[in-house]
Amino acid sequence: MNESIQVAIRGTGHFFPGHPVASEALDARVGLKCGHLEQESGVKSRHFAEDISQIDMAVTASQRALDQAELGADDIDLVISANGVPFQTLPSTALLVMRELGIGDGNAAAFDVNSTCTSFISALEIASRQVASGTCRNALIVSSEIASRGLPWSEQPEVAALFGDGAAAAIIGPDDRSGCGIRASLMRSYPSKYEACQIAAGGTRFDYHENPDEFARHTLFRMNGADLFKLTLKHFPGFVDELLEQAGWQKEDVDLVVPHQASPHALTHVVRQAGFGGDKIVNLVAQIGNQIAASVPTALDHARRQGQAGPGTRLLMLGTSAGVSFSGLAMQM
Amino acid sequence: MNESIQVAIRGTGHFFPGHPVASEALDARVGLKCGHLEQESGVKSRHFAEDISQIDMAVTASQRALDQAELGADDIDLVISANGVPFQTLPSTALLVMRELGIGDGNAAAFDVNSTCTSFISALEIASRQVASGTCRNALIVSSEIASRGLPWSEQPEVAALFGDGAAAAIIGPDDRSGCGIRASLMRSYPSKYEACQIAAGGTRFDYHENPDEFARHTLFRMNGADLFKLTLKHFPGFVDELLEQAGWQKEDVDLVVPHQASPHALTHVVRQAGFGGDKIVNLVAQIGNQIAASVPTALDHARRQGQAGPGTRLLMLGTSAGVSFSGLAMQM
Repeated sequence: MNESIQVAIRGTGHFFPGHPVASEALDARVGLKCGHLEQESGVKSRHFAEDISQIDMAVTASQRALDQAELGADDIDLVISANGVPFQTLPSTALLVMRELGIGDGNAAAFDVNSTCTSFISALEIASRQVASGTCRNALIVSSEIASRGLPWSEQPEVAALFGDGAAAAIIGPDDRSGCGIRASLMRSYPSKYEACQIAAGGTRFDYHENPDEFARHTLFRMNGADLFKLTLKHFPGFVDELLEQAGWQKEDVDLVVPHQASPHALTHVVRQAGFGGDKIVNLVAQIGNQIAASVPTALDHARRQGQAGPGTRLLMLGTSAGVSFSGLAMQM
Repeated sequence: MNESIQVAIRGTGHFFPGHPVASEALDARVGLKCGHLEQESGVKSRHFAEDISQIDMAVTASQRALDQAELGADDIDLVISANGVPFQTLPSTALLVMRELGIGDGNAAAFDVNSTCTSFISALEIASRQVASGTCRNALIVSSEIASRGLPWSEQPEVAALFGDGAAAAIIGPDDRSGCGIRASLMRSYPSKYEACQIAAGGTRFDYHENPDEFARHTLFRMNGADLFKLTLKHFPGFVDELLEQAGWQKEDVDLVVPHQASPHALTHVVRQAGFGGDKIVNLVAQIGNQIAASVPTALDHARRQGQAGPGTRLLMLGTSAGVSFSGLAMQM
């Protein structure tokens, strides 16, 4: 078992842009029979960021987390932006969140962590180690995603219908209660299925200036759901067992599971297959879709505001991400 | 002072693609007077990746680090890709490095860390905390950059001439020598100058499909060197003092400074202004240019292969990055 990383979640917040967009409205827009997209994807509605930037969404979610924590921007000395997709190619997204949130020059460190859909879990562990060691006092981890920018509405409308936009944030501070904080964290990657879930353009792979047509052909998200599902079915239950063993927990010790909201079908199937009852699982995906990295902190904030994750709660964050990776974190609140 | 994070650098490696390209050859290509680019940038030559991908460069540098460490791919259970620019928009670059290096599915965790030019320093700290805590055994941190993809040869040829392509990697393992490893690490961000150094397209900021012209206008690197220089001059010396104080070191205790190879002029001026003699500084920038995040590990590998950084050496890694951030790490080898 790892030693516990003694931190507490001091505040969380989330933000949804615009109004909910029903799957039926999208059926009409794409030219499909009414009911098709909800039937196929399981997602009833989601939000789309039409008049707001990724940064402004991040800042609003972060401000809500600060308000809940009763902290000001100047109490934060580490900002990690944990996104699947950045605001610009360069520099890091976290810097602009830091600035727009009103954290003064030189008062914080800011950088980005990216493990696609599980970026928040990766960043939470990284930030927690810095907080617990005294390298920083309070860390802000924020995920903000505009999935709607690159969805394959023509080629894979049922895949496109899975996604929604949004942002969520958490603030981590030190905790002196022995045994509390992160009891175990685990990540395992399976890159044989790297191509199962990707936006292939946007980095160095396709040269925008020399090969604009090839770049253009790869600017949309593509997913091979069957490949992902097969890999997850095979390896995810063992992954969860390993995480629990490291935490020193039995399955029945877990009070709440905060999973990545990958898709309604996958979420229900996989987390139950891992051995948790539906009443222990935060499940919002039918209402808001898969918000990439913002899914986990949105679900966490929802659970906290519903009173499901108070002091002492033994919580598992779990997720699968493009790549493919599994990430999990066992935390005693 | 932070507690020491007890890790050792077990191996390092670097890779330069193709042949060195002299600044004089670029003068001719861009239509400038012979000698102009070297005069203005201070960079004599650099490498350009023409027939090799960012991933293949990363894998070659990583294999060299493994060879030096006398380890195999399966000894690595954490891969962090530490780049300013990724291979694809999604998923993370580290996964493909993991796969192509021959690390089997499920045998490692892989994700990306991005603080632009100082990504390697950030990732080294993150990996070291995981290694020292026993979360992983041996971590590979690899930076691979194709800066040449987005250089402003028409608008700012003197800026374009600063950059080169390359990759470098380091392998970190546990160390039981008390007092060795990372003695202190520090990062401070100054996002008031976020726009001083950027590639503004490629993320969610400009919509490739809805606003292709605006996207196109922002696909090249732009730099306001004067703004960066002013900010660095003002704050960097105090930053170095703070890092040394946290390490419990005086300036004269430092055996070697491994700085980001930002530019010949900046490097010489800034590191000397921080109070170190030229003989203590690894300075390769005139020969290879600024390789974004690959600069620091390339300089580290160079120093190790020259015998400048053996057991017991007290080493400072220091860098400024777009954003603007300063990063530093004090390590007793």
